Amino acid sequence: MKVILEEQGLRDGLQTLPITIPTATKLEYVARLVAAGIKRIQIASFVHPKLVPQMADAEAVCASLVRQEGVIYSGLVLNLKGVERGVAAGLDHLACSISASDTHSQKNARLTLAEAKKAFQSMVKLSQEHQITVRGGIQCAFGCRYEGKIEAQHVLDMVDHHLDLGVDELALADSTGMGNPKALGELMEQVVERAGKIPVVLHLHNTENKGYANLFAALQAGVRIFDTAFGGLGGCPFIKSATGNIATEDTANLVHQMGYETDLDIPKIAAISKEMETTLGYPLPGQLYQLIGNEEIKMI
Amino acid sequence: MKVILEEQGLRDGLQTLPITIPTATKLEYVARLVAAGIKRIQIASFVHPKLVPQMADAEAVCASLVRQEGVIYSGLVLNLKGVERGVAAGLDHLACSISASDTHSQKNARLTLAEAKKAFQSMVKLSQEHQITVRGGIQCAFGCRYEGKIEAQHVLDMVDHHLDLGVDELALADSTGMGNPKALGELMEQVVERAGKIPVVLHLHNTENKGYANLFAALQAGVRIFDTAFGGLGGCPFIKSATGNIATEDTANLVHQMGYETDLDIPKIAAISKEMETTLGYPLPGQLYQLIGNEEIKMI
Repeated sequence: MKVILEEQGLRDGLQTLPITIPTATKLEYVARLVAAGIKRIQIASFVHPKLVPQMADAEAVCASLVRQEGVIYSGLVLNLKGVERGVAAGLDHLACSISASDTHSQKNARLTLAEAKKAFQSMVKLSQEHQITVRGGIQCAFGCRYEGKIEAQHVLDMVDHHLDLGVDELALADSTGMGNPKALGELMEQVVERAGKIPVVLHLHNTENKGYANLFAALQAGVRIFDTAFGGLGGCPFIKSATGNIATEDTANLVHQMGYETDLDIPKIAAISKEMETTLGYPLPGQLYQLIGNEEIKMI
Repeated sequence: MKVILEEQGLRDGLQTLPITIPTATKLEYVARLVAAGIKRIQIASFVHPKLVPQMADAEAVCASLVRQEGVIYSGLVLNLKGVERGVAAGLDHLACSISASDTHSQKNARLTLAEAKKAFQSMVKLSQEHQITVRGGIQCAFGCRYEGKIEAQHVLDMVDHHLDLGVDELALADSTGMGNPKALGELMEQVVERAGKIPVVLHLHNTENKGYANLFAALQAGVRIFDTAFGGLGGCPFIKSATGNIATEDTANLVHQMGYETDLDIPKIAAISKEMETTLGYPLPGQLYQLIGNEEIKMI
């Protein structure tokens, strides 16, 4: 059985970093990750460059991208302007996303939840007009740092709304790492059932050290596509609560050991993480890249 | 439903540190951890002080210990000499442990597996003669860095041997963090069944970022007692592969969110971890203690 990992390191990973990675370096990372077996990769987000300066070169990244066949290059968009930019940049897969939390939506997108749902409808419509594959996302689906708990029924209603609009994929995000494997597993089981033939993606953070337990629970619930970041990139030593995604190589290792296939070359990805550690000057949250290359120890 | 966490920070945690914590400081930590709700705590190991200098004060720790009622103070012993020292030190609960890996046993205890099993029998017998509760442990039960995979049937045979000797508790250790939630969950289900009324303890490391997924799998398999270390102590920045136990406060948080009770005061434990971070001068692997105290964010 197959598990697919969508690489988020160059988007969710980089956006919380204290430094800005040059466009050419980003493109090198994209090429190396794809060479390591990555088949889906988020390469940019089309948000306001004043808010996320690390993503200001979204258009430049897309313009210089050397595409490999069979690889999905994705961009994150949070409003209609973002869709327009993504279309103009020539992407054929957009991750359109809104928050399940009203407070988070107002703070992050300056939209109430009702306004965000309406905006989301326009985003999907415009993407569809341009024959772009739409991944419909729900942020903060398992908890919000402003609101606390997010009700499962509320998330399921949003899932239904996304599905009604005809999204090509459904993506739920534990943006804050507040999900727990029991509740998350139960909710994902219902989401997978409602989605039917529409693929379901899960985006996990390891903020409270529950990311990999949530991964296991979601596998049991039938989820087969996960967002990950090489090295667990995204953990910022200056903002302790902003911990990274689950790490690509650690996730691949976990699912391989369970008998799933990913096509990923773990040592190659670990080497990329190791290099990023050197660039940043501090260890990333991923564990595996710190072990690989230590010839004294055996891996399974 | 209840989950019990046995605190290992002052034994498994300290023994890999580059510094030695003074006896008085250890005793302060014991008192503070017990005040935070810890009901079981490993306070020392009776191993050769030349091999593990951080544990050279095992007798001194026991002699000055102020015991609280209802708390189990435990010592780790790996040979008959250790049992004798534990008995002389006045402990009434000993963790007697041998390895499932022949190579590990030979390197760590200078005994073949057959010799170790025989030695274990004597250790249990001597403990029983002194009316000491015996926790019978199996190290490297889910993988060995020298041997790689450890066969499940081999572990089950050792479990049967431990049970035949009349151990009061059974403890399996993923000493290397090589277990995966599928295999570990399946094996623990069989162990719990064989153990019957004998309590089963699981000792997990987060070396490959699978510790908390393994915790979740073991909960599903019916395990209710886990070894943990405050802050995930044990991760040593100078030996990257020696990652710590799963963190006490992160584990408590995970199981509380799933509906289990632990009696633990998470902010109190997080404060102890924070202080250890300051003492050591580098972050511990635990995530939660880095979040708690940040008043801008909500916890569930």
